[in-house]
Amino acid sequence: MSNVRVHISVSADGYVAGPNQSRENPLGEGGESVHEWWIALKAWREAHGMEGGEVNASTPVAEEVMANVGAEIMGRGKFGGGPGPWSDDWQGWWGDDPPFHKPVFVLTHHEREPLTLSDTTFTFVTGGIEPALDQAREAAGEKDVFIGGGADVINQYLAAGLVDVLELHIVPVVLGGGARLFDGLGPGLALEQVRAVEAPGVTHVKYRVAG
Amino acid sequence: MSNVRVHISVSADGYVAGPNQSRENPLGEGGESVHEWWIALKAWREAHGMEGGEVNASTPVAEEVMANVGAEIMGRGKFGGGPGPWSDDWQGWWGDDPPFHKPVFVLTHHEREPLTLSDTTFTFVTGGIEPALDQAREAAGEKDVFIGGGADVINQYLAAGLVDVLELHIVPVVLGGGARLFDGLGPGLALEQVRAVEAPGVTHVKYRVAG
Repeated sequence: MSNVRVHISVSADGYVAGPNQSRENPLGEGGESVHEWWIALKAWREAHGMEGGEVNASTPVAEEVMANVGAEIMGRGKFGGGPGPWSDDWQGWWGDDPPFHKPVFVLTHHEREPLTLSDTTFTFVTGGIEPALDQAREAAGEKDVFIGGGADVINQYLAAGLVDVLELHIVPVVLGGGARLFDGLGPGLALEQVRAVEAPGVTHVKYRVAG
Repeated sequence: MSNVRVHISVSADGYVAGPNQSRENPLGEGGESVHEWWIALKAWREAHGMEGGEVNASTPVAEEVMANVGAEIMGRGKFGGGPGPWSDDWQGWWGDDPPFHKPVFVLTHHEREPLTLSDTTFTFVTGGIEPALDQAREAAGEKDVFIGGGADVINQYLAAGLVDVLELHIVPVVLGGGARLFDGLGPGLALEQVRAVEAPGVTHVKYRVAG
């Protein structure tokens, strides 16, 4: 059976985005620094049609993150467009050729028709995290479902016991505030460490979520 | 020159002790689980006069943690005895032969004469973190000063830019509350990842604190 997977870059103090997120600054103050290890990689650049980039100990981790994913679920914040009813003008942060190349399910309180940009179709789900996962599983088939964030979405899926694999890419950055992974979660969440990988400017720690 | 070092076990969600710390439960609910990797080690058991224990990838990390430390600074919580003026009856959590074997400086708001138990002398410092560090540095000589916790004491030293080395022993445990490392710290704290070590049930990530 396919897995539900989270792979997320976090600051040393546990934030996945910095304070004061906005349309101008979607990752919040300092939030971009959490992803620097990733966008420097050749594996990331190739997946986004760019040349060059680094090959290092993060490369096999990044390749594993991107492999065998059949669908992604994301929150409204990651798709963007601010709160409230949709404006059809807003087609996401991700441009005309979004980097997902697979079905994406966007959690929202406001209905909207599906949006197809290049080979990515965004489906807007208003029923909550469980119906979104049902749809994503069906779209993914034998492949895995990736929970793409933000922190609130990941925390909801963790709290509901619906995540199988959780990998943290821990970077040597202190954000001091923002969107915190694990916020509101309790000791009922049982983790088993699968592996840890030292890489330049980041440590990858992979857990299996047991309950 | 000697270094000021922090080595601290933290849950995956960033807590060094669980919620509801008390005299009966000094590490808070679930807090003992954060230290299991450590007390299972032969290196730890030998240092506490016990036999047996594991030798694994954590062993060289533990040996490094314990080596070349000339003095320790701890908060009132780690020494124990509750808030308010001291009762001389309270001689700490640590028994007649405390495991420190070096000068210990206890941060407190309440004066107390030094207390010697076996080869450990506890000196009570009421002037705050900087005088405590001055005294600890002098006692340590060429050796390093270890900031032993709890989280509030570590956070104060980090905020003041007085820590050189910060090592997190990150365990696959979610505490859901308690004493949080990095609480109240801001992006002015610059970390440089020195190394990461995968070990059974824990990942050791060592940082140099740059500012």
